[in-house]
Amino acid sequence: MERGFGGEGCVLVTAYHTENTMKIVIAGLGIIGGSIAKALKKYTDHEIYGINRSKAPLAKALECGAIDGVGTNETLKTADMLILGMYPDAAVEFVKSHAEFIGKKCIVTDTSGIKSEICPKLSSLAKEHGFTFVGFHPMAGKEKNGFDVSDADLFLNASAILIPGDAPAEAVKRVADLTKKIGFGRVVYATPEEHDRMIAFTSQLPHVLACAYVFSPQCPKHEGFSAGSYRDVSRVANINASLWSELFIENKEPLLLEIQTLIDNLKEIKEGIEKGDREELAALLHQARVIKEALGE
Amino acid sequence: MERGFGGEGCVLVTAYHTENTMKIVIAGLGIIGGSIAKALKKYTDHEIYGINRSKAPLAKALECGAIDGVGTNETLKTADMLILGMYPDAAVEFVKSHAEFIGKKCIVTDTSGIKSEICPKLSSLAKEHGFTFVGFHPMAGKEKNGFDVSDADLFLNASAILIPGDAPAEAVKRVADLTKKIGFGRVVYATPEEHDRMIAFTSQLPHVLACAYVFSPQCPKHEGFSAGSYRDVSRVANINASLWSELFIENKEPLLLEIQTLIDNLKEIKEGIEKGDREELAALLHQARVIKEALGE
Repeated sequence: MERGFGGEGCVLVTAYHTENTMKIVIAGLGIIGGSIAKALKKYTDHEIYGINRSKAPLAKALECGAIDGVGTNETLKTADMLILGMYPDAAVEFVKSHAEFIGKKCIVTDTSGIKSEICPKLSSLAKEHGFTFVGFHPMAGKEKNGFDVSDADLFLNASAILIPGDAPAEAVKRVADLTKKIGFGRVVYATPEEHDRMIAFTSQLPHVLACAYVFSPQCPKHEGFSAGSYRDVSRVANINASLWSELFIENKEPLLLEIQTLIDNLKEIKEGIEKGDREELAALLHQARVIKEALGE
Repeated sequence: MERGFGGEGCVLVTAYHTENTMKIVIAGLGIIGGSIAKALKKYTDHEIYGINRSKAPLAKALECGAIDGVGTNETLKTADMLILGMYPDAAVEFVKSHAEFIGKKCIVTDTSGIKSEICPKLSSLAKEHGFTFVGFHPMAGKEKNGFDVSDADLFLNASAILIPGDAPAEAVKRVADLTKKIGFGRVVYATPEEHDRMIAFTSQLPHVLACAYVFSPQCPKHEGFSAGSYRDVSRVANINASLWSELFIENKEPLLLEIQTLIDNLKEIKEGIEKGDREELAALLHQARVIKEALGE
């Protein structure tokens, strides 16, 4: 397996562990942290240590071989990478309370669904304590949560969004390389603000509207009257309310903008239906098809 | 193959062809009519005749064996069943202009996505001319249209909604039996009004919101920032605008109600995000999960 950095910008290479095997600590063994652990064990030969507030996921991860051991403050001191698999605020809290143990060669990365709210805080902590921070959002998930539904192949062909911030290029490359090793199909780079604006549309808005959709009084009676359209729109209404309420509120501004845009667009179609001019309505709806086709979808 | 009717209500049995092989005419060989033709040839030994405005689908259907021949006014005179695979208004027009040729033993059924607007018209025509009408809505489809994407297994495990109206029970049973033979997993019965109220929610609203969703200025930039949520919500935005504008306008009242309900629910979640109380927002979102879980989804 080819690892390490080559070519340009090698000045900082020595700041990071360049041997084949890295010591990686994953804090938070839910679906994302658990899946990263399993994927790392399946596709790489890195040493993996798990940290988790409750004991059950740790025991399960040890038993199934997703981690080599339970991480401690001592493990953090010599870790090459720390991956945070927690809710956004908890991730910041974890780094804050463990900053003194995180070694200077360590690259810290998170997996949060929001970035403007937490990347600057984690970058500041990194600068203050001498380690490196690179933001990361794996675009994969399931309707269910927790270590039990984690999956070594959750990330196959998914997109990895990286938020380099002011991290050295070598550290960013190391995270990018690791995402490719565990199955991600592509890596895209963004600022925290670009990320949050896009995610408000691609991920948060579909969750908002899935919930709004199933609130219809017709919903409980849908059986026998529904097919793929119902199933697809309502899928993510099976929501982890505690996680998503945090994500929504911490990405308030871009998300409110997307919800209002959706409401305005719904009103425009509604007015077209009220007016009852078939050709005019067809022309409006056809624009949606044009957008999808231009995207090759 | 067991067909025919047994037991109670046999008085009207003689009004219908009770032999094993029926002569079935399908008018309109798009994705739905074409799939019914292919499924009938695959799973039954009925004789199938196709009628279509343009010639290409007829030639293709003949070539691939989806139909035994091209239907004519003469075929209609001796047909046991006429299945309308056309847009709603076109279906009514077809029956109106061919009513004199439709034999009295014939069961006419449609496949329209709206019922209040067309079932009463088709029932009246049936009464006037002595044949039988049973409304039918197959809950299956694809994002693409036309005979080319028709599929003998399109209906596997799908729901068949039947609108019996005042049709004799034997005729309704014959249509229901046929749907089961071609793969439908269940049959549900409804009045036109019940059907239209449910379909406004389960099928039309997802199409409206998929279009409204992709109208966001963020949409063309989504690549690399999206996963299953984007894909599922936007899927049906690749809309057949001419068909759906007809369906939306002809089901105006229930659909406008559903769109307004969705807008109101979106506003409620939006206000929760604006207010920024995590627990209150989580409690609201959690109701969506409760609804999905109660449905076993």
